[in-house]
Amino acid sequence: MPALSDVPPSHPRYASLMTREKVVEGVERGITGRNGLIAQGRGEAFDYLIGERTTAAAAEAERAAAAMLLLAERPVLSVNGNAAALVPGEMVSLAKRIGAPLEVNIFYRTEERVRRIADHLRSFGAEEVFGEEPDAAIPGLDHARAKATRGGIFDADVVFVPLEDGDRCEALVRMGKRVITVDLNPLSRTARTSTVTIVDNVVRALPNLISLVEEMAGWDGADLAGILEAYDNTAILRRSVEEVITHLARSFSPLDELSPP
Amino acid sequence: MPALSDVPPSHPRYASLMTREKVVEGVERGITGRNGLIAQGRGEAFDYLIGERTTAAAAEAERAAAAMLLLAERPVLSVNGNAAALVPGEMVSLAKRIGAPLEVNIFYRTEERVRRIADHLRSFGAEEVFGEEPDAAIPGLDHARAKATRGGIFDADVVFVPLEDGDRCEALVRMGKRVITVDLNPLSRTARTSTVTIVDNVVRALPNLISLVEEMAGWDGADLAGILEAYDNTAILRRSVEEVITHLARSFSPLDELSPP
Repeated sequence: MPALSDVPPSHPRYASLMTREKVVEGVERGITGRNGLIAQGRGEAFDYLIGERTTAAAAEAERAAAAMLLLAERPVLSVNGNAAALVPGEMVSLAKRIGAPLEVNIFYRTEERVRRIADHLRSFGAEEVFGEEPDAAIPGLDHARAKATRGGIFDADVVFVPLEDGDRCEALVRMGKRVITVDLNPLSRTARTSTVTIVDNVVRALPNLISLVEEMAGWDGADLAGILEAYDNTAILRRSVEEVITHLARSFSPLDELSPP
Repeated sequence: MPALSDVPPSHPRYASLMTREKVVEGVERGITGRNGLIAQGRGEAFDYLIGERTTAAAAEAERAAAAMLLLAERPVLSVNGNAAALVPGEMVSLAKRIGAPLEVNIFYRTEERVRRIADHLRSFGAEEVFGEEPDAAIPGLDHARAKATRGGIFDADVVFVPLEDGDRCEALVRMGKRVITVDLNPLSRTARTSTVTIVDNVVRALPNLISLVEEMAGWDGADLAGILEAYDNTAILRRSVEEVITHLARSFSPLDELSPP
C-alpha cells in the first residue's frame, strides 16, 4: 500500500485515513496481524455510527473501569496487535500508574509476533511484559488461544483486555475474573460478557482512563467501591445502542435534503 | 496470518470468518490491497447491523440496477481489488449477460495490481477487460485516481462500481454518468451520490443482479424504463437506515435478558 502521504489532505476522510495508518504501520512492523486490519475496519464503522466521540455512556464505563483497576489486587493489562499499534505508550503509562504488568495476548499467535509486541512495549518503557513464556492455560479455549502466564493474566483478579475476542473474554469471565474491555460494537459477545464494557475508540479510551486513574488515585477504597456498586453494564450497553440509533435518526434530515436522482 | 482452518468450526463467527478469508486470499495473490482488508471490516460491521441479509430496500435497488444496466447503451462494470477477490466470476457473468466490458479501477493504483486483477478476471472467462492502458482522465480527481479508458468507463453512460470511493463516485456523476454502486453504509458519500445505491453485501448483490438481469432480459424497454421512473434512491437510503434502526432496537430484548454484573 502506498504511503498515506499519497492521499490528498483534501480527501474528506483524511483524518480517519491517518488514524488507520497506525494499524497499517503495525502490520508492516510485524506487530499487527492482517486480521487486525479487518478489525480496524469494523471499529471504524461502529465509531462512525456513534459519531466518533466518547459518549456519556462510554465516559461512565471508563470511570467504573478506572475504579476497578485501582481497587484490583492483581490487575493485568492485556495487549494484542491492534492495541500495540494504536496505543502502545498509553498502555505502558496506564500499567505504571496502577502498578500492573502487561501481557501480550494475540488471536493468531506466532512466537515471533509476541516477541515483537513485547519489544515494542519495552521500547515505550514497559518494565514487566508477560506473554513470551506462557506457563498456564485458560480452560475452555483451544491450545494456541489458551496460553497465559502465571503471575500475569492467569492469576489476575482484574484483566483489562481492549479489543478482545468473544471466546476468550467468556473464558476469562468463567475463571471468575472481572474483565474490562474496549469494544465499539455494543452488541458483540465481548461487550455482553465483560464486567465493564467501554464502547469507545481505544485511541480515545486510553487517554481518558489515564486521566481518570490520575484523578482517582488518592480516593478512599469505599468511594471507588461505591462507583462500582452503582455501575450497571447492561444499562451502559443499552444506552450505547440508543446513541447509535439517535445518531442514525439524526442522519435522516441530511438525506431529506437530497433530491431524487 | 495462519490459515482459517486454524479457527475451530465451533467459533460463533466461523461463517463470517470464512467469507473474510476470500479477501485475505486476494491480498496474498496480490489482487487486493491491504486497504481492502480495512474496507472488508467496515463492510462486515454494516452488514451485521442490517442482519446479514438482503433487505426489501436492497432488493428494490437491485431491480432498478438491473433495469438500468439492460437499458444502458454503453454500460461498463468497474472492478476493484475487493470485488475481484469476492465476486470475480459473478462480475464476469454479469458483464456477459448485459454485453458490457469490465474495467479495473483501484484506489491505490499500481500497474502490477491492475494487471493481476485483469488476469484474474480473464481466468474467469472475461473477454474485454479495460484498465491496463488508460488513455483518458476523469476530471476533478488527482492524477493516479483519474485514470480511465476510452471505450470503457470514460465513455460509459452507466457505470456499475461496487465498493467505490466517494470522491471517484462524485466525479463520475459530475461527468453526467448514471452510477450504480454497492455500499453497505447507507450514509456514505458514495451511497448518497450514486444514482442507484444497493445497500447489500456484494456477495449477495451480484447473484441477485445476475438473476434479475436473466429474468428481465426479454422485457420491453418501456417496462424497464417504468421501473426506473418509479425508483427513488433517497427513499431507498432512508429505508436502509430504518432497517438498521429496527435491527438495533430488536437487539434490546436480548440485552434485557442479561443480568447486571
